[in-house]
Amino acid sequence: MKQIYEQFKKEINAYKYALWLMGWDDETEAPKASKAYRTEQLEVLYTLVYKLEMDEKRLAAIDQLAKENLTGPFKREIELEKKGIDQLRKIPQAEYIAYQVLISKSSQIWAEAKKNSDFEAFLPTLEEIIVFQKKLIKYLETDTLKGYDVLLDMYEENMGIKEYDEFFKVLNEKLVPFVLKTAKVKQKFPSVLLKGSFNIEKQKQFNHRLADILSYDLKKGVIKESVHPFTSGVVSVDTRVTTAYREDLIDAAIFSTIHEMGHGIYEQQVNPEFDGSILSGGVSMGIHESQSRLFENMIGRSKAFWDTYYPALQQIFAKELKKVTAEQFHLYVNRVKRDFIRIEADELTYSLHIMIRYEIEKALFNGKLQPKDLPKTWNKLYKKYLGLTVKNDAFGVLQDIHWSIGSFGYFPTYALGSAYAAQIYDVMNQEIDVEQCIKNNDIRKINRWLREHIHQYGKLKTPKEIILNATNKPFDPNYYVDYLVKKYTTIFKAYEVN
Amino acid sequence: MKQIYEQFKKEINAYKYALWLMGWDDETEAPKASKAYRTEQLEVLYTLVYKLEMDEKRLAAIDQLAKENLTGPFKREIELEKKGIDQLRKIPQAEYIAYQVLISKSSQIWAEAKKNSDFEAFLPTLEEIIVFQKKLIKYLETDTLKGYDVLLDMYEENMGIKEYDEFFKVLNEKLVPFVLKTAKVKQKFPSVLLKGSFNIEKQKQFNHRLADILSYDLKKGVIKESVHPFTSGVVSVDTRVTTAYREDLIDAAIFSTIHEMGHGIYEQQVNPEFDGSILSGGVSMGIHESQSRLFENMIGRSKAFWDTYYPALQQIFAKELKKVTAEQFHLYVNRVKRDFIRIEADELTYSLHIMIRYEIEKALFNGKLQPKDLPKTWNKLYKKYLGLTVKNDAFGVLQDIHWSIGSFGYFPTYALGSAYAAQIYDVMNQEIDVEQCIKNNDIRKINRWLREHIHQYGKLKTPKEIILNATNKPFDPNYYVDYLVKKYTTIFKAYEVN
Repeated sequence: MKQIYEQFKKEINAYKYALWLMGWDDETEAPKASKAYRTEQLEVLYTLVYKLEMDEKRLAAIDQLAKENLTGPFKREIELEKKGIDQLRKIPQAEYIAYQVLISKSSQIWAEAKKNSDFEAFLPTLEEIIVFQKKLIKYLETDTLKGYDVLLDMYEENMGIKEYDEFFKVLNEKLVPFVLKTAKVKQKFPSVLLKGSFNIEKQKQFNHRLADILSYDLKKGVIKESVHPFTSGVVSVDTRVTTAYREDLIDAAIFSTIHEMGHGIYEQQVNPEFDGSILSGGVSMGIHESQSRLFENMIGRSKAFWDTYYPALQQIFAKELKKVTAEQFHLYVNRVKRDFIRIEADELTYSLHIMIRYEIEKALFNGKLQPKDLPKTWNKLYKKYLGLTVKNDAFGVLQDIHWSIGSFGYFPTYALGSAYAAQIYDVMNQEIDVEQCIKNNDIRKINRWLREHIHQYGKLKTPKEIILNATNKPFDPNYYVDYLVKKYTTIFKAYEVN
Repeated sequence: MKQIYEQFKKEINAYKYALWLMGWDDETEAPKASKAYRTEQLEVLYTLVYKLEMDEKRLAAIDQLAKENLTGPFKREIELEKKGIDQLRKIPQAEYIAYQVLISKSSQIWAEAKKNSDFEAFLPTLEEIIVFQKKLIKYLETDTLKGYDVLLDMYEENMGIKEYDEFFKVLNEKLVPFVLKTAKVKQKFPSVLLKGSFNIEKQKQFNHRLADILSYDLKKGVIKESVHPFTSGVVSVDTRVTTAYREDLIDAAIFSTIHEMGHGIYEQQVNPEFDGSILSGGVSMGIHESQSRLFENMIGRSKAFWDTYYPALQQIFAKELKKVTAEQFHLYVNRVKRDFIRIEADELTYSLHIMIRYEIEKALFNGKLQPKDLPKTWNKLYKKYLGLTVKNDAFGVLQDIHWSIGSFGYFPTYALGSAYAAQIYDVMNQEIDVEQCIKNNDIRKINRWLREHIHQYGKLKTPKEIILNATNKPFDPNYYVDYLVKKYTTIFKAYEVN
């Protein structure tokens, strides 16, 4: 049985590597006119790999292996495979394929609608997607998993409405008041940072140093550009990241690069023995995001980081940054602005954007909200939590790609990841002096800690086990809120002093 | 039958696109440490596509279709497929696979041997490859195709020893004396060109203009960097080129880019209806090389080209090129130097490097030369034709990758391509004024002519038919030699005048 399973695995892996690369290429460099041809080839290969994955011999082998008395990583591997095929078996194949076809076209419809800020143009497609998602829920419901929880669990095992409600309640009670209270703080930045222009070739010089600073391994990775930064990997030895430069923002590419490298370092540090099995790669979206956020915010936006690396940046932008101090730069990269766009949000208000999306998704799937009413609800919540009046849907409900590709249940993991990160940082900082590591240009010591306590496991442990294992406690959102309040109290105080 | 054939074609195409992309990625950006994993996946996919290609149902469909009374492009498509499977069927599968395994490792052994200039380290592998090539010849021989001709025909239909002997005889009789006679010409160049340093970012500025100048379509193509420049494409809508920059040579990247774009423009202009069939892409190595050489040498190294575009280059390298005139630059890019390395050879002596390789291959396959004696023979021929004493094998017999990947019979097409180009240029220039097109910044007019007379056909016509169709004459090497003699007589005269 194991032999049959392994033979299928070998072939499926080959397809998946090819499909992964075609996706990476599509988003980074493939010529525009080749899109249609490539999409045809992708469809053929997806069909072939689906056939393999659902081959009766393979399914029987997994069913059989799942009953055996397995141990070690292979036990977990088969558990995950079994969970996957049990889910797939519940979805009628024709519906699944029809949905894939829908999804393959919907993001272009969304992009067009967003460009024209025309929600009505996207609505019929979105409704179709939601109809399928609701059917999907019905197919996959179990005794313990119902409704929207089915979707939430796909992105983060064991996190459902109950858990997220508790999480967001803490944010609502402790973070929202802080954000509102500090909204009046007058932040001031050197005007060159606000109105400057920063040569992209020079930005690249600094950005390419980041791989070295963070120990993102270029023998196992690539840094490239794409419209939206992302990380893409299939095995520990091939994990690639992209970044996006903006001439008007000196720090946009820096933090998107650090963020993506955080994802990349996670995948690079998974036990290489898991390469080619379901155990490789990050365990969940939440844990993944915890690593990118830890690097981006807790390391990259720390005072220690800019005390250490600002001189290098200053040297590259000698003219522009001549009169800007490391302190000023540190405050600048931690600027807070309640604004419309999630992906441009600062660390303090980011999770409020997520809270809004979570509330909306919950309402969509418990029937309290109809898709056609999305813009109204969206705009109401942005008023309520961020005090903002959304001017048009491009800056509102149409801003994110996620729903257009059927990713419902995904958003909450973004906030969860930041919260995980705070809890992980807290315990890591008790064992190694993180600030000192940064100051010593020894971030690899941080990476080693993360590898030992989190990264190496890949999907061997559940997210819940990972957090318990790394922090000796179950997940507790208070770490996150306490961290934010403490950090931003200090930051806002700096403005009073100056 | 057609339906069965088309269904296989659809799947095979999908594999081929994926395999092509994996190869492109491997040579351009894939991280080093991922090589082994990727190679495994490639092997699995190659095995799967081989199985599909040799599926009895597919073979039977092609056999049947080949007997039917087909017309139009589909007739030629089936002829080519039939020829392909008939050849594959003659090679025992186990041997074929063993050879693929050998080939997948041999280029690394060659690269290592080249690095150390250690022919002995490569010899056993090379011998194995030649043994297989000889077996291959035996398997594929027909009544009309024997010995080395079998290999030659693989790269250029209808070109065998008889035809190449005639071709190289003309070179030997008319070109070699000219090269020897003009060896004493004293060429002089501005020292900044010989000893300058040319910022690569600035080089890129000019190089990226080349796509526009030549009408290489970036909606259907990509320009990237790799160690050795190459063109890689599977369909007209996805044809990618690479270039390689050298800080010490201002023109290295320019001409490698123009050369590869010549290949790329050819593939981009094939009838898009052939995308996804065997008819897409260039018809042969010789015709392909004729297009890259035509762009590189006859357009890119022309006086008209530098009269027109030198000011743009001069503007980018304002300091370096301040005192260099367009005339001087034109002479510089046409400098002649009898040297050891084929890929760095100038237009005048290039085909002599090929003649040497052709003589060697011929002798290897008619038994007059043993692999172990290759260095001796190589060095003797470089003395004879180029008057050079080869110092070590890295600069001698180990310089080219081709034999290490079993590409015997390929080299002659490089010289043939240049010769085709001269004949094509001659007739094209009678129909449109090529120099005027260049001066008017209207190279797309040249591209249109090439599309109409050559490119659009893809593999629909044989190389022989292409030449006859485009030039109204069979291939005649005198065009090439006459062109070279005329061009370099003018160029060498310029040194006398100055």
